[in-house]
Formats: sequence, structure tokens, C-alpha cells
Amino acid sequence: MLAGFDVGGTKVLGLLIDPATGTVLERGRGSSAGDGATLVATIATMAETLVARSGAEIEVVGLGVAGLAHRSGVVRYSPNLPDLVEFPIAARLGDRLGVPVALGNDASAGALAEARFGAGRGVTDFVFVNLGTGIGAGLVVDGQLRAGANGFAGEAGHMIVDLDGPEHLTGHRGPWEYFASGNALGRMGREAAAAGRFAAGLELAGAVETITGEHVGRAVTDGDAEAAVVLDGFCREVARGAANLVLVLDPHRLVIGGAAIEIGEPLRAGVDRWLGALLLGAAHRPAVEVRLAELGADANALGAGLLARELLD
Amino acid sequence: MLAGFDVGGTKVLGLLIDPATGTVLERGRGSSAGDGATLVATIATMAETLVARSGAEIEVVGLGVAGLAHRSGVVRYSPNLPDLVEFPIAARLGDRLGVPVALGNDASAGALAEARFGAGRGVTDFVFVNLGTGIGAGLVVDGQLRAGANGFAGEAGHMIVDLDGPEHLTGHRGPWEYFASGNALGRMGREAAAAGRFAAGLELAGAVETITGEHVGRAVTDGDAEAAVVLDGFCREVARGAANLVLVLDPHRLVIGGAAIEIGEPLRAGVDRWLGALLLGAAHRPAVEVRLAELGADANALGAGLLARELLD
Repeated sequence: MLAGFDVGGTKVLGLLIDPATGTVLERGRGSSAGDGATLVATIATMAETLVARSGAEIEVVGLGVAGLAHRSGVVRYSPNLPDLVEFPIAARLGDRLGVPVALGNDASAGALAEARFGAGRGVTDFVFVNLGTGIGAGLVVDGQLRAGANGFAGEAGHMIVDLDGPEHLTGHRGPWEYFASGNALGRMGREAAAAGRFAAGLELAGAVETITGEHVGRAVTDGDAEAAVVLDGFCREVARGAANLVLVLDPHRLVIGGAAIEIGEPLRAGVDRWLGALLLGAAHRPAVEVRLAELGADANALGAGLLARELLD
Repeated sequence: MLAGFDVGGTKVLGLLIDPATGTVLERGRGSSAGDGATLVATIATMAETLVARSGAEIEVVGLGVAGLAHRSGVVRYSPNLPDLVEFPIAARLGDRLGVPVALGNDASAGALAEARFGAGRGVTDFVFVNLGTGIGAGLVVDGQLRAGANGFAGEAGHMIVDLDGPEHLTGHRGPWEYFASGNALGRMGREAAAAGRFAAGLELAGAVETITGEHVGRAVTDGDAEAAVVLDGFCREVARGAANLVLVLDPHRLVIGGAAIEIGEPLRAGVDRWLGALLLGAAHRPAVEVRLAELGADANALGAGLLARELLD
């Protein structure tokens, strides 16, 4: 069996996975707080619990982490997990558990899971775009996950799309994720409410400052027309960056993941429409199919397990 | 033997190539003027001449064309060769010559040639960026040229890098090639001269309006300080878009081609420096090696021949 762990800024999700079917046999949760050694202990305990509960053996372990996760098993850069940077987590965890441990970027892991068992099935080339706090991407090209020279491919959220745009928390101006992450959707909701154009959001959240992307999504689901306008603007921003990725990679499909996809079809259809409008030469190429991710919150941990199998074969 | 043809907006370059060594055995030139049938006749005659002169047989033929060159052998979109759009050039030329004919994008072809016999040797992942009239790119990932679902990958010149930027001839605002193509270098030279900051360019060209990228390059070679400032601004723009590609693809190397590389080391070093300055997380990742293309004006035709062999194996 495979064990996959999605190591987020605050939580760890662990899954015990049947590699043949992608079935999740057991799951567990833990805290990602503490330094590298603490995290190794947390994950090792989670893994032992998965084994104890299932009676199955773990052959390989995969970790998915937001940030620059080097193939060698060391996180080089991760604003979400600063204590993990330069700590040899894969080696230490491997020593502790006595099995090989692979490290990958969380969105790359999610792309792999979607490729094998989700919205990426049936095509050889797709881009997985995860709209969360920021934007992460995973690339499947010619049927394989492609993680780049170091394992850092897919940092698409940091593509500069607006040279003179607002300064992002990275210090760079106008990266795609400033405009099109899940966080950006909340900001757009707040901006609309502050301008008197999102009454439903104000009602749902109680105050302008507390409006999040979830409130926008809920109002869209409720059929609120002002929320639909906010969402349309957001879909446009998602499509702008996606158009850049399509120009570079020419995928069959764009798969959108992250919490924002709880909005469902209105999000998908909006990105689809804007991608057609914004993509250069769209009239001369087959439409890129826009799909929502199918594996939900399990995707990254599931993919981390799959990544381990593929890396360590 | 392979025959490779680089079909440009005005000229066709044809090469007879030894596939084992990449050696160019014969070469010929023709005009790309006229409709699809005329072009088929032109290329067929060129191929027959290559055969007659060398005594060698051609096994496969490859064509490299700027624009959206579909795997099926049809150009879907090409501002430079509008008469060729939707004409089944590969099939017609194949019928005429009695050998398989493959069609590819010119920059993808150039990337393949550099991968096998030029500046891409020794690494599995690199991006080839051709700075010409516009910007074309070719992607080598995990040791293979990756042309995408349709063959359209690498249209990186059309990535939007400045949402509110100037309108490009495509009608889109702020694409990378507006800022960083060979043409852009000329525009920067003219802007500097018009502002009284490029006296050497004015002297070389005779008038502001006739300054081109070549004049900037010549003045740089002559050691002109004002030209070095123009070039530095250009290198920054090249690096901005290259940074986006590095974030997405995580290559070992960036290979720069096109007429602009006649400037040589000052161009390479400038892009290298700006890439380090602009790339997010540059301090946390191995430096991306910046190299100039090695195959010069032959790269696209050579690569087209290699592409044919790879596609038709």
C-alpha cells in the first residue's frame, strides 16, 4: 500500500491508498506545527496508526508540500512551512519508517491524482490549477507528470501578468495569484460590497471586511445577480493566466481545483467562456476543455502517495 | 537522409541532413511567396535539387513554420503565411515527393535541433526562446521535445505580461513579444534616440525611424554606453517573460536564439543577471543556466528534419 500526506500550513492529511484503484483505505489528520523533527514524529505516528488500523503494510510514503519541494527530498522554499525549509524531511522520515519517502509539490501531486483517478483521465496533456490561498499548478505532458529539473515546475501563480499591478505578499507586482486565487475571490467580494454592489455578501458575512470567497460562492448558489458579476470578474482573471499556460503548453484540458470549485458549474462555465474570449487564436484551435477537479480535498495526499510510487519505482 | 525546410514569411531554407551527426550535406534557398500549391512546388523542386546534388535519398521531410502548425500537417494560424492556413501542405508535399512529411512549429523545430546538436545538449529540460520578429519558444521536457496536444505548445510570445500594456498587432494588450522580440529591441533603440539618449544609433541608421535592433547590437559591440543601457532594458524584458516560463517549467537551462543573439555575450549576461533578479525564489533554487543558441540560422530547418524523423518513426 501507499501512504500519502498532504502537509499544509496548519494541518496534515494522511491517506492509506490502494495503488491499483486509488481507493482510500484509511485516513488520519494531524497538526503541521513545530519544527522538522516534530513534523517527522507527527507523520510517522500518523503512518503507524494507518498501518495499525488497516493491518496493511506501507511500501512507500509520499509527501506533498506547498512551495519549492526539491526532488532530493528537501523543501527549498515554502512561505507556509518556514520551519521545514532546508530540513531533510524525506530522509529523516524514511529513516524513521524504514521505507522510501518521496517529496513533491502539493499541486503537482494533485495533478497526478487527477490524472490517474480524476478529471485528467482520458487525455495525455492537461494542466491542473489549484485555486487556494495562492495558485499552484501541476503539469501532465505526454501522459506523465512533469515536475521539471528540480521538482519546482508549476509555480504558475507567480507568473507576472501585470507589470504595474499591485504588489503581492511576495514583493512582486501583478502575479497571477494576486488576481485569481481563492483569496482574490474574497477580495473581489469585499471590493464589490464596499462599492455598494454586493448586498448579499454584506448580509451573509455581517461586514465588508469579513467577506470571503465562500460568501461569494454561497451568494452565487443562491442566485444573487451581484455575486454573479463578482464571479464573472474572477473567472476572467482565472482565464487570463490559464490562457498563458495554454499558449505555452497546449493542453487538451484545464482542470481547476481548490476550495473555489465548490461554486461548481458557474465557475467552470465562466472560466470556459473567458478562456475562449482571451486566448489568442482561439478560433483556430480546438477548444481547451475546462473541467473541475473530481477528487476534492483528498487529491494532494492521494497524489503524494502516487508520486512516491512513481518516483521510487 | 532527412530534408528539413524552414518556411518563413518570405524565404524557404532547405537542408539535406545526416540524421546521425546533424551534418548539413546540402543547402538550398527559395521563395515562400504564393499559395499552398505554389509552395508545394517550390519545396518539391528544392528537395529534388538537394537529392540531385548529393546523390543521397531523402527518407523523410520536415517543415518548420511560424504559427499554429497542427500535428496533422495543416497550418491552422500563421500571420506570416496567411495563404498556407488550412492548406494540407504536409499531405500534398508527401504525395508529390513520395515520402512522409511532418509539419512542426519553427521554434519547436529549433529547440529540437539545439537539443540534439546545439546549446541544449547535456540537460533534459530546457526552454528555447527565439527572439525574432516575434517570440517563439520550444520546450524540451524530460529529454523530449513537447509540442502539446495539437503541436501548438511554445506560443510564449503571446503570454500576457502586462494587462494594461500597449496593444500588439494581435489586438491583445501587453504580450511578452511586444516587449522582448527582436523588433522590440529596435523600437527601444528608436525611443532612446528620439529622447536624445542614443546618438550612436542615430549616426549608424541615419534617422530615428530607421534604427533597428541590429543598430543597437552594433553600437553595443562598439562599446557605446548608451546602447548598453538600451540593451539592459531589453534584457530585462526578455528575463521577465523567461521568469514566467521558468516558474511554470523549471528547466535546467534557457537557450536564446534568433537574430538578436548576434549581440553575443552582452545579451546573454544581461538576461542572466535580470533573470536572477526577477525570478521569485531565485535564492532558493539552482540558477537557470542562460545560453545562446549554437546552430544559428540553420536551427529551424535542421530541427524540422529531425522532427520529421521523430514524428514518423
